[in-house]
Amino acid sequence: MKNETITAPLGFRCGSAACGIKASGKLDMGVLVADEACTAAAMFTRNRFCGSPVTVGREYVRDGRLRAIVVNSGCSNVATGRRGVADARQTCVWVAEAIDARPTDILPASTGIIGAFLPMDKMRRGIDQAVANLSYSAAAGRKFARAIMTTDLKPKQACARVRIGKTTITLAGCCKGSGMIAPNMATMLAFLTTDAKVAARDLKRMLAEAVEPTFNRVTVDECPSTSDTVTILAGGAAGGLNSTKAKASFATALREVCDSLAYQIAADGEGATRVLEIKVSGAKTARDAHAAARAIAVSPLVKTAVHGGDPNWGRIVQALGATDVAYSPERVTVRLGNAILFRHGAPAKELNPKKLSQAMRRKHVTIAVDLAAGRVADRVLTCDFSREYIAINADYHT
Amino acid sequence: MKNETITAPLGFRCGSAACGIKASGKLDMGVLVADEACTAAAMFTRNRFCGSPVTVGREYVRDGRLRAIVVNSGCSNVATGRRGVADARQTCVWVAEAIDARPTDILPASTGIIGAFLPMDKMRRGIDQAVANLSYSAAAGRKFARAIMTTDLKPKQACARVRIGKTTITLAGCCKGSGMIAPNMATMLAFLTTDAKVAARDLKRMLAEAVEPTFNRVTVDECPSTSDTVTILAGGAAGGLNSTKAKASFATALREVCDSLAYQIAADGEGATRVLEIKVSGAKTARDAHAAARAIAVSPLVKTAVHGGDPNWGRIVQALGATDVAYSPERVTVRLGNAILFRHGAPAKELNPKKLSQAMRRKHVTIAVDLAAGRVADRVLTCDFSREYIAINADYHT
Repeated sequence: MKNETITAPLGFRCGSAACGIKASGKLDMGVLVADEACTAAAMFTRNRFCGSPVTVGREYVRDGRLRAIVVNSGCSNVATGRRGVADARQTCVWVAEAIDARPTDILPASTGIIGAFLPMDKMRRGIDQAVANLSYSAAAGRKFARAIMTTDLKPKQACARVRIGKTTITLAGCCKGSGMIAPNMATMLAFLTTDAKVAARDLKRMLAEAVEPTFNRVTVDECPSTSDTVTILAGGAAGGLNSTKAKASFATALREVCDSLAYQIAADGEGATRVLEIKVSGAKTARDAHAAARAIAVSPLVKTAVHGGDPNWGRIVQALGATDVAYSPERVTVRLGNAILFRHGAPAKELNPKKLSQAMRRKHVTIAVDLAAGRVADRVLTCDFSREYIAINADYHT
Repeated sequence: MKNETITAPLGFRCGSAACGIKASGKLDMGVLVADEACTAAAMFTRNRFCGSPVTVGREYVRDGRLRAIVVNSGCSNVATGRRGVADARQTCVWVAEAIDARPTDILPASTGIIGAFLPMDKMRRGIDQAVANLSYSAAAGRKFARAIMTTDLKPKQACARVRIGKTTITLAGCCKGSGMIAPNMATMLAFLTTDAKVAARDLKRMLAEAVEPTFNRVTVDECPSTSDTVTILAGGAAGGLNSTKAKASFATALREVCDSLAYQIAADGEGATRVLEIKVSGAKTARDAHAAARAIAVSPLVKTAVHGGDPNWGRIVQALGATDVAYSPERVTVRLGNAILFRHGAPAKELNPKKLSQAMRRKHVTIAVDLAAGRVADRVLTCDFSREYIAINADYHT
């Protein structure tokens, strides 16, 4: 079987360990190491109470160069002040010493409980163990994808291969979504690798372009984490992108990988039983298209209706009505799958509640809104809203 | 026992009926009639898919004069186009004929399922019955408060008496909160009566000033209804407000009545087991104070933590971090009740999880955030977030 994990691109090794940060004894430490220093780019949360690893990561990736990633689950090192930042730097020092690299070429990431300091003795032991079992194998890639999970039910991985002339470029990634430890906030961490040779400034631009329509269009509970991090390392072992066409192919593949990972996050949202895709067309501006789709995607009333398979479309127009996007209520059309629910300011005559309820019980439910105010479209992915979400977030104590 | 219902002020009668709009056979029609035309003011939802009664009500109250209110529960007459507006006008015509008033002196209101037309035969029968049993009694006031309920568990009423010179002015109100029929969206309807004589322009201003810090500071699921309506009728039978001091006393009483009703809405929010009050101080601007409090109040992570009695304060800073309000994270202090959770950018040293968990299990939980960025304060009331919310909104089908 072909390696489709984060070690699929040439020149990347992974190591993992269970060092006791998670009380469950599951994998909680991962190290990803490139054979050589890579060009690199990263995007971080805009939450102003950002984690200490985010503060350090922002600084270290600024020169567009990384050699390794060190990530732990079980403790997010957020709201931990100066000590937290010093701890994040120290983990980079330990990895750097172990692989003979510069500490500033290591990107740290943490996910888990907020407001607790990293257990540095466990971190040290975990890093040593993870570095000791570094491997190019698919098994190592799969273990890494599990080591970054919190209450994710499934590891999330994606891989794409692009033929450019005679060479094959490989792109791969893994991510974690909305999970809690004990419990804590939903955090998105995504790590991407490629063996293409890409200039740092191109990588930065392409990453931003890939993240915007994918990771930035997923919401589970509309609570932006303090730790969100997406990063890509480009090693170059397979060859360069020497033409505009090659770059475009690479950018497309990068977006596809991000798209797959983002979809997996929605599907594995806390308590999720189905994916809900909100498509908006006919918006006057890009901002309007995004705002309208997001307003519907974050509505607990829409999300609980979808959970119950209840074609309660009034909740969709309610959510839309609460926004300030440009449209005229009489011209708006709302569809569930292929069926029209609402147009000309009134319920569609042909509504069939039974069929609609069936359409709402699919694994993937699409709500499409045509604002008839312009030509811009957008979409947002989310999941339904279940008792399980409440259970995950209310019952298991810190 | 003193009358503390909406018929407590002199000159107001209520009638109610169960006319079959609700399948349960419960009260679903209420009529409130003043002996004489009153000065009146009303505030409505800003949701742009507003209900047909809101469209009609806005028009009828513009002259600052009303004689009666007609309200049904079970069908909100929202997203029903021109036919919906015509139906709302017709209900006013029927009431006007029955009490010998002008149709434009009747304010219509509806709450319940969205996207269904009013069952006009039942409406007609209900209006006839309600008018036939109009009464000044407290029992009639209590029945009216029940007739406007949807899935509210309790009727919500408040009353205040103000001594001005030798006369006593009475102010009363009732409201409904976040309830669903079958199910549908949370709707706030509030009706206020007084026997003070107040000029329409004063009433409008005082109502706006009373609504802003009370009804506009409650959120259950942050889904602004298409039908929200707050209205006040001032009959004048008890006497006028002839001094600045008298007006101020009246304004204070009005705010107290609104405050009590708003609190009852939070306490009876869908699935609520406790009230959560978010207080923000030290904000740079009024907008910032409100935005910070609201960001915490709407966070499903905060609301589920409070439901579980879990002092997971990381979620509070996460919610704050996602806003654009002015503060420096190192200067923010977060308190739960009297206990400090977070300051100087790190967890408070004296944290006692057991005590905090107890503090979170009270009927009224207060989270206080000092932004240390200015002098403005605000607060928002909400409730915890439980499985019951999901059950109410996902399980009972339309």
